[in-house]
Amino acid sequence: KINSDRLWDSLMEMAKIGPGIAGGCNRQTLTDEDAEGRKLFQKWCEEAGMTMGVDAMGTMFMTREGTDPEALPVYVGSHLDTQPTGGKYDGVLGVLGALEAVRTMNDLGIKTKHPIVVTNWANEEGARFAPAMLASGVFAGKHTLDYAYARTDLEGKSYGEELARIGWKGEEEVGARKMHAYYELHIEQGPILEAEGKDIGVVTHCQGLWWLEFTLTGKEAHTGSTPMAMRTNAGLAMARILEMVQDVAMDHQPNAVGGVGQMQFTPNSRNVLPGSVVFTVDIRTPSIEKLTSMRSQIEERAEKICDELGVGYAVEAVGHFDPVTFTPDLVSNVRNAAEKLGYSHMDIVSGAGHDACWAAAMAPTTMVMCPCVDGLSHNEAEDISQDWAAAGTDVLMHAVLETAEI
Amino acid sequence: KINSDRLWDSLMEMAKIGPGIAGGCNRQTLTDEDAEGRKLFQKWCEEAGMTMGVDAMGTMFMTREGTDPEALPVYVGSHLDTQPTGGKYDGVLGVLGALEAVRTMNDLGIKTKHPIVVTNWANEEGARFAPAMLASGVFAGKHTLDYAYARTDLEGKSYGEELARIGWKGEEEVGARKMHAYYELHIEQGPILEAEGKDIGVVTHCQGLWWLEFTLTGKEAHTGSTPMAMRTNAGLAMARILEMVQDVAMDHQPNAVGGVGQMQFTPNSRNVLPGSVVFTVDIRTPSIEKLTSMRSQIEERAEKICDELGVGYAVEAVGHFDPVTFTPDLVSNVRNAAEKLGYSHMDIVSGAGHDACWAAAMAPTTMVMCPCVDGLSHNEAEDISQDWAAAGTDVLMHAVLETAEI
Ligand SMILES: NC(=O)NCCC(=O)O
Ligand SMILES: NC(=O)NCCC(=O)O
Repeated sequence: KINSDRLWDSLMEMAKIGPGIAGGCNRQTLTDEDAEGRKLFQKWCEEAGMTMGVDAMGTMFMTREGTDPEALPVYVGSHLDTQPTGGKYDGVLGVLGALEAVRTMNDLGIKTKHPIVVTNWANEEGARFAPAMLASGVFAGKHTLDYAYARTDLEGKSYGEELARIGWKGEEEVGARKMHAYYELHIEQGPILEAEGKDIGVVTHCQGLWWLEFTLTGKEAHTGSTPMAMRTNAGLAMARILEMVQDVAMDHQPNAVGGVGQMQFTPNSRNVLPGSVVFTVDIRTPSIEKLTSMRSQIEERAEKICDELGVGYAVEAVGHFDPVTFTPDLVSNVRNAAEKLGYSHMDIVSGAGHDACWAAAMAPTTMVMCPCVDGLSHNEAEDISQDWAAAGTDVLMHAVLETAEI
Repeated sequence: KINSDRLWDSLMEMAKIGPGIAGGCNRQTLTDEDAEGRKLFQKWCEEAGMTMGVDAMGTMFMTREGTDPEALPVYVGSHLDTQPTGGKYDGVLGVLGALEAVRTMNDLGIKTKHPIVVTNWANEEGARFAPAMLASGVFAGKHTLDYAYARTDLEGKSYGEELARIGWKGEEEVGARKMHAYYELHIEQGPILEAEGKDIGVVTHCQGLWWLEFTLTGKEAHTGSTPMAMRTNAGLAMARILEMVQDVAMDHQPNAVGGVGQMQFTPNSRNVLPGSVVFTVDIRTPSIEKLTSMRSQIEERAEKICDELGVGYAVEAVGHFDPVTFTPDLVSNVRNAAEKLGYSHMDIVSGAGHDACWAAAMAPTTMVMCPCVDGLSHNEAEDISQDWAAAGTDVLMHAVLETAEI
C-alpha cells in the first residue's frame, strides 16, 4: 500500500501554490503559479530518482528507469493546472498519486521491466486556452503545434508566447514518444461513487464533447432611445439559445448534458445593446449518435432563432472529442486491483474529459476514479477524503505494476 | 447664425482624442483621454474669453460674463465623455454647440444681461461608473458626494481615485451654484426626427428610467460531469429573465423599452457552470405608472424564475430617474427660435437620459434635439450632417439669448 500521509502532505503542499480565494486553487495554465507548481513537482520527482524530459508543448515527462532497455514505458499522469476557481484535487491527485506510487516502489525496492513515466500534461483544463486537453491532443496528433501555439486567452495572449515567457518550452518533439500503456487516476467530479458508497470507479468509457462557440452579431444601439421594433438584439437571441440548449439536453436524457460557462458582451455597457455576444455551449454524452444529434439540433435551432431576430450568426467548434471506450485488459487490471485490495468498486463512465481520452488513441489506456464530495468540481469547495485519495492511489499503483511487470 | 464650419472643425478636432476603432470615440469618463479632451475644451473656452470653475465632481463651468452683476447665469451644456464604442456627437455636440454660440456672440459683439456658463458635466454616460448623469445628479442633490466617489468601474477603480488621478478634482462645492435656466442641445439618438424629415426636435419630456442590477447565484460545477438534475444553473435563470424583460416591455407598448447591455459570468470558464451571473436591466418609458408597473412585474417574475431553479436572487437599483416634463416657457423659446429661423420642427420626448433631467429639478430647463442617421447612437457609426449640427446650434443660441436677455 502507498503512504497515505505522504500523498496527502504533497497534495496540501501543492495547493499552497496559486491559492484560491475560498480554499481552492487558481493555478491556471502558463501563469507564474503554473511555473512554480512545475518547479516543485520537478524537485519531488528528481528526489525520487526520476529524470525529466519536457516537450515543445510544455508537458513534463519524469522517467523512472525499467530493467529492460528495450521495453516501452508505462505512462501514468494527469495535470497540475487548475480552473480559475478550481479545487485542490482535480488533476493534481492523478499526478501526485503517480508520484506517490513511484515513491512507494522506491521504498519497497520494487523494480519494473517497463520504465514508468509520471506525466504532467500541459493545459488540460482549457480554461485559459481552449480547447481542453490541448497538449495531449497535440501529442496524439489531433491538433498541430501551430494551432496550439496560436490559441489565445481572453486578453489575447497566445499559448506559444506564454509558454516561452514562463520558461517551460521544452526541446522534445511533441508526440515522438511511444507508450506501452497509459493510466490516469482522477477524482470523479460527479456524484455517482459517493451516492453508491463505492471507493473506486473502474472507468470503462468517457463521454464525448463538443464546445460550440457562438458569435451573435447585433446592432450596437442606445437602450433608451432605440424603439423595441428597431432593435437587432443579440442578447435576446442568446437568451433564447440558452433555453433551447437546455431543452435539447433534456430531450436527450438520460446521460446527456448541455450548458454555458463562458459569456462575453461587447461593448458591455449598461446603456448599449450589445454589438456582439460570444458564448460557448458545452454538450456531452457517451453516445456518439446522441452527440451528433444534439449538435445538429442546436446549430439548426440557433440559426433559426437568430434569423427571426435579424441577428448575425456564426458558430465555431473550439473543442471536440468523440466518446471513448477504454482498453478492456487495462480496465480489468483496475477492477482486479480494487478486488485484491478489498476496495468496493463499480464500473463508471467519465463525465469529464481527460488526457486519457487522447492517450487512448495511441496506446492501451484506462482510468481509476475516486469519489468527491457532492459530486462537486470546478469549484473551490471541491473536496475528497484522505482515504479516498489513498484507495485510488493504491489501485493505480497495483494496476500499473501489473502492466509494467515486476 | 452660428459659424457652421468652425463648429464642425471643433467637433472633428475633439473626435481625434480617444479615437475609436471604427470611426467613433472611446473617451470614457476619468481616463487619460477624458483629461486630454478637457484640456482642449478649456483652451478653446479661454480663447473665447471665458473663465473656468471646476467642482469636486470634475464638472467644468466656463463663464462668459453678463452685463448685470446681480443676474444669475444661464447654463448651457452637455458632456464630453463617451461610451467605450461611442459616437463623435453624443454629448459633444451639446458642449461644443454651446461654445460655438458664445464664439458667435463674440463675433457679433452681443452682450447679455445674464452670464452664460458653458458646462461639461462629468460622467454623463455612466458606462464606466454607474449611474449615468452622475455629476449632475450630485449637483441636483440626488446623490451624495460620498456615494459618487465610491462608484467603481469593472476593474474596481473608484470615481474618487480616478478623478484625483487625472487631476480634475476641483475646489468648488458641488451644487453650490444657482442657475437662472438650463439649456442642452443633443442629438436625438433615436429615429423619429429623421423619419419625419424635421431639422429640430422641441423636447417637451424625457422618459424615466430604472437600471436594475441582478446578481444571480448558482453553484459552480463541472459542465460535463454534473447531471442536469443536479445543476443550480444561474445562466439558465438569466436567459429566462432576459426573455421575460422583453415580454414585459412588449406588454407595455407603446412607448416603453427594456433590454440588457452589461453581463458578467463568474468564473467565466467554458467548462464551469457559473457561480454568479450579474447583469443590468435597463427599462424606460415616459409614463410614471408604466415605469412602476414594469419594475414591479420584472422583479416579481425574476424572483419566481430564480426560485423555480433554486438560483439565488438579488436586485439593486443602480440608476433611476422619473419621467421629466421640461419648462413650458423654455420649450416655447426653442419652438419660436426654430420657427423664426425657418427650420422644420416637431415636439419630441427624449428617449435617452440627459443632464437636463437633473437640471430640471433645480431651474427652468429644456433641450434642443437634432436628427441622427438611422437613429443610431452608442455605436461608433453614429452620424449627423453638418447642416443638422448647425441648425440645432442656431436654435440653441437664439433660445439662450431669449433667456439670457440681450
Ligand atoms: N477533468 C476535467 O475537468 N477536464 C477539463 C476538461 C473538461 O471540460 O472535461
Ligand atoms: N444621452 C445618453 O446617452 N445618456 C446616457 C444615459 C442614458 O443611458 O440615457
